[in-house]
Amino acid sequence: MAADASFRFRILARDGGARRGEILTPRGTIRTPAFMPVGTAGTVKAMYAHEVAALGADILLGNAYHLMLNPGAERIARLGGLHAFMQWDRPILTDSGGFQVMSLSKLRKLSERGVVFQSHIDGSSHELTPERAMEVQALLGSDIQMQFDECVRLPSSREDVERAMRLSLRWAERSRRAFAGGPGQAAFGIVQGGAERDLRIESAKALADMDFHGLAIGGLAVGEPQAVMLDMIETVEPHLPADKPRYLMGVGTPDDLLACLRRGVDMFDCVMPTRAGRHGLAYTRYGRMNLRNSRFAEDPRPIDATSLAYAGRHFSRSYLRHLIKAGEILGMMALTAINIAYYEVLMAGARDAIERGMLDDYIAETRAGWERGESAGAQE
Amino acid sequence: MAADASFRFRILARDGGARRGEILTPRGTIRTPAFMPVGTAGTVKAMYAHEVAALGADILLGNAYHLMLNPGAERIARLGGLHAFMQWDRPILTDSGGFQVMSLSKLRKLSERGVVFQSHIDGSSHELTPERAMEVQALLGSDIQMQFDECVRLPSSREDVERAMRLSLRWAERSRRAFAGGPGQAAFGIVQGGAERDLRIESAKALADMDFHGLAIGGLAVGEPQAVMLDMIETVEPHLPADKPRYLMGVGTPDDLLACLRRGVDMFDCVMPTRAGRHGLAYTRYGRMNLRNSRFAEDPRPIDATSLAYAGRHFSRSYLRHLIKAGEILGMMALTAINIAYYEVLMAGARDAIERGMLDDYIAETRAGWERGESAGAQE
Repeated sequence: MAADASFRFRILARDGGARRGEILTPRGTIRTPAFMPVGTAGTVKAMYAHEVAALGADILLGNAYHLMLNPGAERIARLGGLHAFMQWDRPILTDSGGFQVMSLSKLRKLSERGVVFQSHIDGSSHELTPERAMEVQALLGSDIQMQFDECVRLPSSREDVERAMRLSLRWAERSRRAFAGGPGQAAFGIVQGGAERDLRIESAKALADMDFHGLAIGGLAVGEPQAVMLDMIETVEPHLPADKPRYLMGVGTPDDLLACLRRGVDMFDCVMPTRAGRHGLAYTRYGRMNLRNSRFAEDPRPIDATSLAYAGRHFSRSYLRHLIKAGEILGMMALTAINIAYYEVLMAGARDAIERGMLDDYIAETRAGWERGESAGAQE
Repeated sequence: MAADASFRFRILARDGGARRGEILTPRGTIRTPAFMPVGTAGTVKAMYAHEVAALGADILLGNAYHLMLNPGAERIARLGGLHAFMQWDRPILTDSGGFQVMSLSKLRKLSERGVVFQSHIDGSSHELTPERAMEVQALLGSDIQMQFDECVRLPSSREDVERAMRLSLRWAERSRRAFAGGPGQAAFGIVQGGAERDLRIESAKALADMDFHGLAIGGLAVGEPQAVMLDMIETVEPHLPADKPRYLMGVGTPDDLLACLRRGVDMFDCVMPTRAGRHGLAYTRYGRMNLRNSRFAEDPRPIDATSLAYAGRHFSRSYLRHLIKAGEILGMMALTAINIAYYEVLMAGARDAIERGMLDDYIAETRAGWERGESAGAQE
């Protein structure tokens, strides 16, 4: 890996606050704004990785927390790293485990050093520190490695938010130092500060000075209204280095993605398209469809004849409803693929619109399609 | 549909008692001996139908019992039939519901007329008679429709077996009369009689006189040893019309298939490859592998580099073990495909061996591969 072994970000076009860019890595180019499907435990649930690639995803997210517990980061390293393990050769971003250790694990004990916790699976005891979180991600062979942070739920007291933000800054420094940095690998810091504008700004400024390859905005979409989330993004955005990618963690609905990329966010991840798909919800250009609804019982039409997903074009809504109602795995497979395809095509449309300087029109047209929506879809 | 709109069976080669044939239908040719993957409720669980076709299956099995309850046979008919519903354009054989109504439903009441039963899903009341069973299968658009029968578990008293066999014969006559018979569609009778040789022979002879397009052997693989099953096949076989296909219902392991096709069986179905796959078992040319076994934890090799299934060639045993242990849907998808691929390649090998007059060698070599098996596979 010579000339192309570096991690680079370049902006190709702007439209208002939105950026059309690309992240160049030795494993491939990530077109931004990008949506990253979530492959929690070494698999995007209910899909083959090569199918996810075929639907347009340039990068997946993996979770250090899940993978360190099962099958273990050292084991994955011995097997050649996460890319080989899960048969995905494009870039992977890994979460550091900070979020999951707070939301999933039992009996955690937080200290300046890190977090000691019990596995949510078997109760075994583990420790995550900034140093160990970066080591785990290096063992996985992650292309974009996230700092270890503490993420609080909203609403939380200002005191809690401030304490967690400052701890996360100290952990950011330790994470950055611990980052091993293989060829073309990157480390991202995470802006915290809850819904407190001054704390968010302080966090962003401090991180901007730390030589990360990109910055994330964490601790949003954890229970607050969309307006609060957008306010925080607008607050933070001017303090993020303009020449580095910005990643909004764990967001969100299709509408969230459009609202946030319009405000300068370059990368997203969310379990919504996969999790909702497994529960019978389809995200489409006609809006969200709940396939459990009886009005689909004899609807012979496909979800969307233009879908990149085979099931989106070929399966009738009645068949999908039957599969979901019967608890059939194929229903989960089909709706997961349909939703990933829609999220990816939504982002492709946004990238194209930014290049043409037509983003606001694109967003308005897309939202109008959702508004005409399901009912128009069912009657046409 | 003119010249090719008929249902025909022709034998291309024989080797001992084994037959290499083909069933010609308007929807395509079924190469025999054939293994039919089971698509109980309108889906081969955890696979797209087009993937099943790509692995070599010429025909699927559907279950009238499941489909009449959900989403309903009339509904499927209004939606264009089962082929369109599940996006499978090759032949489909449907079970009549006789077996499932006995094994799954609650509070069933059997009479000469038929069976009144409560759905295992919602407790709703339904009736299946020979006439309704054939109507349901006609509504589904099934290419091969099975008579309605009563299947008893083994061991059962001779009295129970005899009563059920005679009732099934009367139901066979009613089923044959009720068979609607669209172009190229076929009706099969089902030999019953438990483990009683004379009853089996009586059943076979009576059915042979009834103008069915093929005959099945039912009521085996319901708890008896393999030797009893083989004895019953050898007992029945001389009394089955030589020029019609013979279908052994619900059988079996790879070894069962070889033992039975050697005795003149042309068609098989079984949930084993799909159900076992969902539970972490792989059927391979090295024998059966339990992917939960810890010896696969760091085994980087694929299940079988020659597998027709993508996952069989590309996923390491360690990855499959991780997926199964983590309860990931992808693990079920992968092992289902691996097993269907193996069952189909096993049958393709048998067909080829019969053509070459080398079936006994093929069976011996195949069994030797299973014997060398997993341990050799893990050590090589």
